[in-house]
Amino acid sequence: MKLDFHMPTKVIAEKECVRNNADVFKMGKKALIVTGKCSAKNNGSLDDVIWALDKNNIEYAVFDKVMSNPTVECVYEGAEMAMEEEADFVIAIGGGSPMDAAKAIALLAVSDIDRKDLFSGNIGNKALPMIHIPTTAGTGSEVTPYSILTNHEKQTKTSIAAPCLFPAYALLDAKYMKKLSLKTTVNTAIDSLSHSVEGMMSARANIMADIIAREAIRLLASEFDNLASGEFTDEDREKLLYASMLGGVVISQTKTTAVHAMGYSLTYFKGIDHGRANGLLLGEFMEYTEKFAPEKIHDILDCMGMKTVDEFKAELHKILGETENFVLAELEMYADIANMAGGVKNSIHCPDRSEILEIYKNSLL
Amino acid sequence: MKLDFHMPTKVIAEKECVRNNADVFKMGKKALIVTGKCSAKNNGSLDDVIWALDKNNIEYAVFDKVMSNPTVECVYEGAEMAMEEEADFVIAIGGGSPMDAAKAIALLAVSDIDRKDLFSGNIGNKALPMIHIPTTAGTGSEVTPYSILTNHEKQTKTSIAAPCLFPAYALLDAKYMKKLSLKTTVNTAIDSLSHSVEGMMSARANIMADIIAREAIRLLASEFDNLASGEFTDEDREKLLYASMLGGVVISQTKTTAVHAMGYSLTYFKGIDHGRANGLLLGEFMEYTEKFAPEKIHDILDCMGMKTVDEFKAELHKILGETENFVLAELEMYADIANMAGGVKNSIHCPDRSEILEIYKNSLL
Repeated sequence: MKLDFHMPTKVIAEKECVRNNADVFKMGKKALIVTGKCSAKNNGSLDDVIWALDKNNIEYAVFDKVMSNPTVECVYEGAEMAMEEEADFVIAIGGGSPMDAAKAIALLAVSDIDRKDLFSGNIGNKALPMIHIPTTAGTGSEVTPYSILTNHEKQTKTSIAAPCLFPAYALLDAKYMKKLSLKTTVNTAIDSLSHSVEGMMSARANIMADIIAREAIRLLASEFDNLASGEFTDEDREKLLYASMLGGVVISQTKTTAVHAMGYSLTYFKGIDHGRANGLLLGEFMEYTEKFAPEKIHDILDCMGMKTVDEFKAELHKILGETENFVLAELEMYADIANMAGGVKNSIHCPDRSEILEIYKNSLL
Repeated sequence: MKLDFHMPTKVIAEKECVRNNADVFKMGKKALIVTGKCSAKNNGSLDDVIWALDKNNIEYAVFDKVMSNPTVECVYEGAEMAMEEEADFVIAIGGGSPMDAAKAIALLAVSDIDRKDLFSGNIGNKALPMIHIPTTAGTGSEVTPYSILTNHEKQTKTSIAAPCLFPAYALLDAKYMKKLSLKTTVNTAIDSLSHSVEGMMSARANIMADIIAREAIRLLASEFDNLASGEFTDEDREKLLYASMLGGVVISQTKTTAVHAMGYSLTYFKGIDHGRANGLLLGEFMEYTEKFAPEKIHDILDCMGMKTVDEFKAELHKILGETENFVLAELEMYADIANMAGGVKNSIHCPDRSEILEIYKNSLL
């Protein structure tokens, strides 16, 4: 028995979660709300948050400049705003991009970290306290200590990690997901599936993370048909949101593996959505891992009610449709980049450069 | 989907956990070590902790006056020592009694709470940070926000609860349990079983607590034969310790139910060990609950690989042996006391006074 478990975020999930838990927002005198340009305004989440803040007479400023796959420039700009506005806590609303940006902003608002040192691993452990309100069901960022940012220097996405990046609260209400496009619903669901499956294939997998991952995989597998057909009830959305949070708890313990490390190039160079990128590689990486840890893969498949990786690949194909076009030269470059990424080494069995290329080729050509 | 999950304690479990994680003890300048009279000295845990403190040049004082079912007087005395010694963090070593006492001491060392208000529910949320090292596998207190103390005024045990009572760290090493008597091993194991089973029968049960409870019940059921025969390998002890921690995570979300509320009288008036007291009542309360929530009870039994509550009762009887002698008048008094306890109202279906008496009679006469 070897275990290292830590997930201090208080998770509250219910209908009308934000308004019902307005007291949670009594965290400081002024909030910086970090979000994207549109979705929080359209799905009602921003209104609910402002209602809760107004109810408690708490001031706020809104930083709504977070783009997909947020940049280092973006988070330094947000941190500057937090300092100018003298915000003493941060509220993140949105998918992985606003939540990850909010974490870096909460860190940089109170820590003097030079841009060149942001990915150094030496970022201290001080950040403004945070409330996270996910409005997609994929990232699980609301319960992780990671902030994943675009790293132009290394031409990939790189995560910063510290216990202080765990939000104090995660407030989950699936109503914010009602207007999500099918594409986003699918891609985020596959991202969250990838978190739980990768968690079980991680070198850091442990018995506690495994039981949570299994539950998440079971829940997501029960949604495969809906993800293929594009029909979702409110209850389906709740399940997806819950499974996504569980996947976040899993990777908060296990980190992600080669799948994420390899997927980042598909996003960085081809603009393929993050969750879809993972989905395109997941089946092949399971097949690779099956050679070294068949019992783990069968455990994962068992949660899905499946017998073989091929069955799972066929299911993913139904959900994700045709793969984008790639040429070998691209994949060679991606393999070079992934081969240097930490995530690869976090796999239960780590592929070398030629195996990484093989997985890319089998997945994408 | 309705969920409220919070368990901020960092759990580290491994062989030589204390010495391998000596850095964890860099929590302050001076520690108050809270423990019982003997066991921490005999099982090596105190030596390991002192080694870790010495390594980091951290001062310490030892408060080793915690008795079984600690009293209010005891925790005020400990808090006075913490203040006199100017301790800025607390280390608890032992079973539920030292851990629960340590929490109250950590609270009272920095909070001005009058004795008459200790059980008022109004205790604030400020305590010294804590490291907990369980040396029995039952209480799960290392991962709960509860401190359960003897309440002479109400002739029972009463819990105080606040988020600040979650330890910062729980360090788990099953080697400290090697010298535990069979009686203590059994009674504590049954306590932890009761936590997970009660968690699933709790009005506060939720999907997250349920998946953790199921795993704990499965693990404990795989130890039933050993609990009856009294033979344990190191791996068995690890399993019991792990299941106990999981049970703690469960009740940190769900609280306990009528079983604990009813068991306290058996401990208070007859000196029956806490875990055994729960075990004597658990089967009958499951039978009661089965009438109202059969699917829950079947879920619990399924984790044990059993079909009926009778099967489970027979197993418990094998493990616990003959019941102590009781007379009806005692049980009438216990029913009066339990009927006023909060725990009863936390059950998925709450027994009234006459039903409580019936459960006592069926269990104990």
